[in-house]
Amino acid sequence: MEFNFTEHQHVRYNPLKGEWILVSPHRLKRPWSGQVESTHEDAIPPFDPNNPLCPGVKRPNGEINAQYSSTFVFENDFPALLPDVPEASGASQTNEELFKFEPARGTCRVMCFHPRSDLTIPLMSIEEIKAIIHEWIKQGVELGDKYDWVQIFENKGAIMGCSNPHPHCQIWASSFMPNEPRIKDLYQREYYETHSRPLLLDYVNAELKKQERIVVQNSHWIVVVPWWATWPFETLLVPLRHVIRMCDLTSEEIDSLAEIMKRLTIKYDNLFRTSFPYSMGWHGAPTGRKAHSNNQHWQLHAMYYPPLLRSSTVKKFMVGYEMLGQAQRDLTAEQAAHKLFSQPEVHYKADEN
Amino acid sequence: MEFNFTEHQHVRYNPLKGEWILVSPHRLKRPWSGQVESTHEDAIPPFDPNNPLCPGVKRPNGEINAQYSSTFVFENDFPALLPDVPEASGASQTNEELFKFEPARGTCRVMCFHPRSDLTIPLMSIEEIKAIIHEWIKQGVELGDKYDWVQIFENKGAIMGCSNPHPHCQIWASSFMPNEPRIKDLYQREYYETHSRPLLLDYVNAELKKQERIVVQNSHWIVVVPWWATWPFETLLVPLRHVIRMCDLTSEEIDSLAEIMKRLTIKYDNLFRTSFPYSMGWHGAPTGRKAHSNNQHWQLHAMYYPPLLRSSTVKKFMVGYEMLGQAQRDLTAEQAAHKLFSQPEVHYKADEN
Ligand SMILES: O=P(O)(O)O[C@H]1O[C@H](CO)[C@@H](O)[C@H](O)[C@H]1O
Ligand SMILES: O=P(O)(O)O[C@H]1O[C@H](CO)[C@@H](O)[C@H](O)[C@H]1O
Repeated sequence: MEFNFTEHQHVRYNPLKGEWILVSPHRLKRPWSGQVESTHEDAIPPFDPNNPLCPGVKRPNGEINAQYSSTFVFENDFPALLPDVPEASGASQTNEELFKFEPARGTCRVMCFHPRSDLTIPLMSIEEIKAIIHEWIKQGVELGDKYDWVQIFENKGAIMGCSNPHPHCQIWASSFMPNEPRIKDLYQREYYETHSRPLLLDYVNAELKKQERIVVQNSHWIVVVPWWATWPFETLLVPLRHVIRMCDLTSEEIDSLAEIMKRLTIKYDNLFRTSFPYSMGWHGAPTGRKAHSNNQHWQLHAMYYPPLLRSSTVKKFMVGYEMLGQAQRDLTAEQAAHKLFSQPEVHYKADEN
Repeated sequence: MEFNFTEHQHVRYNPLKGEWILVSPHRLKRPWSGQVESTHEDAIPPFDPNNPLCPGVKRPNGEINAQYSSTFVFENDFPALLPDVPEASGASQTNEELFKFEPARGTCRVMCFHPRSDLTIPLMSIEEIKAIIHEWIKQGVELGDKYDWVQIFENKGAIMGCSNPHPHCQIWASSFMPNEPRIKDLYQREYYETHSRPLLLDYVNAELKKQERIVVQNSHWIVVVPWWATWPFETLLVPLRHVIRMCDLTSEEIDSLAEIMKRLTIKYDNLFRTSFPYSMGWHGAPTGRKAHSNNQHWQLHAMYYPPLLRSSTVKKFMVGYEMLGQAQRDLTAEQAAHKLFSQPEVHYKADEN
């Protein structure tokens, strides 16, 4: 027998993080008898006077939202990061090797994508999606002036801990570089030192040649299920040109990004005929004090991490072995890419709207 | 104002993994309006003729379980790891730097803890728990003979992807060292090279002095909410003596381990008056080809990773920021340890049994 990626278990390497993933495609045959999630999406009205993210609504802290008609940004009412923290100085506050800590500063913002609660990205117009990207850039520049890292991320769906169905994302900026980008900085830098080319750009060019994991593509962007994907339908969205931060995108690249985001999220929704849950977010070169170092090893990219595995109600649990050993997936990246690639580019709800 | 761990956000360092955790205790004030989990525990009968883990029952693959009266181990019917995989050799199968892979070999076993489906560890007798530990040791030795890593882990509760309520764990042995222990091996080795003492033993001794994060303790073991805990009620169970693998435990240490596991899991169940869900598992020195290297930097330990945050139905979601940035927690490790420490050591269901 010959070794075959779609039949034989193997481990794959993630060169961005120096980690391995266990791929066990034969395990897809396993019947499912575990927990089943509920889906509630049909109940969302365009406007809800009790939803603190809607235009003109009073939030629990007494502030009233603007009557916004595009995007709308405000400070998170319960932020995990605050701008001011006293310096640690007391005797009990000296760093010991096994009890190290640092005070952390930062800020957390909420960004509504659109005035309507029932309009998710795949259902918006290209113009509406462009407004989101322009706001991301503005926020990135403003917060990047002060903070070393600006993390833009969207939790979508109750299954992803998202407590509000109104389309929105969050922006957490911090005085420290979080683990994930810190590790990617390291691995990208190492690769650049050896090859004088950014890792992710070499990767994208190799994917363009191989044509095995591409989900969508246009003149400036590509979406692949990366070779090292851990979530069943994880994707990586990367510009075809060397771009280190979102603010360096040209206006054609922004238009093109809006288009590809719409196409990708339509495919996602069509896959299980549901408003597809995920966490997504952007990584690019660090900012703040780190902005003036050499960051040419960086390549801007977005990741989508969707939890669903088999249907709108059966997700992949990253538990036991995954938490204590390493990530494990059932279908291969190629199989997932093929399923997504084959989805129509018209939203399954298109007739209803 | 003075910096204060229970009031001011900070980052803490995990010396076992070289990672940081964001701690935001002020965020506990946030109201919860997100997804609420369901709990089904009352429906579990002691025996269910349709449950493939019960004694004497026929499994989907046609095999009939033994009429076991203590623990019972069998090969997983849908294993993520199989013992035989062909060698990769074809032209498309050469390793490229950005598309690295390795064939992987291994085996997956299921281990039932007890013939009764309704008896979880906190409700078992010490003798019954000792039988589990003895079986863990036996499996570790048997599989460790052949494989470099033997991962024992328990997924407990539907919320943790556990598809069967019958008390059981899994054992996945592999020809490769998974990410988590590989990284811990590195950091423990580095510490040992500098200090000539195992990191975790130094850590345990420091915790004994500090008395700030201890949950339970007996003559041979200690349970703490580690300084670097990421899950709200995460704990670390460590022997007080330098022990590198479970098979090196003395019979007193085994008795004492059964006792402390019962006490810890009773506290867990009492915290939210529910059969407390978690993933737990063991890490010790590697085996197989790695058994004969110097592994003195290792210290045996178990971790419990429970998802619940506020009640039996509200869990911590490790999503968006956590996936893309770094782990974030609301209550401090000290607050969690104090809550668990204060729980009674009699199970809330004790009267019913
Ligand atoms: O083997 P089980 O219990 O069916 O499956 C569960 O545990 C496995 C090991 O942690 C995970 O890979 C699965 O996602 C989870 O559903
Ligand atoms: O801020 P939210 O949406 O209330 O909260 C959600 O996203 C946060 C950032 O990923 C997580 O820390 C929370 O666990 C999750 O429930």
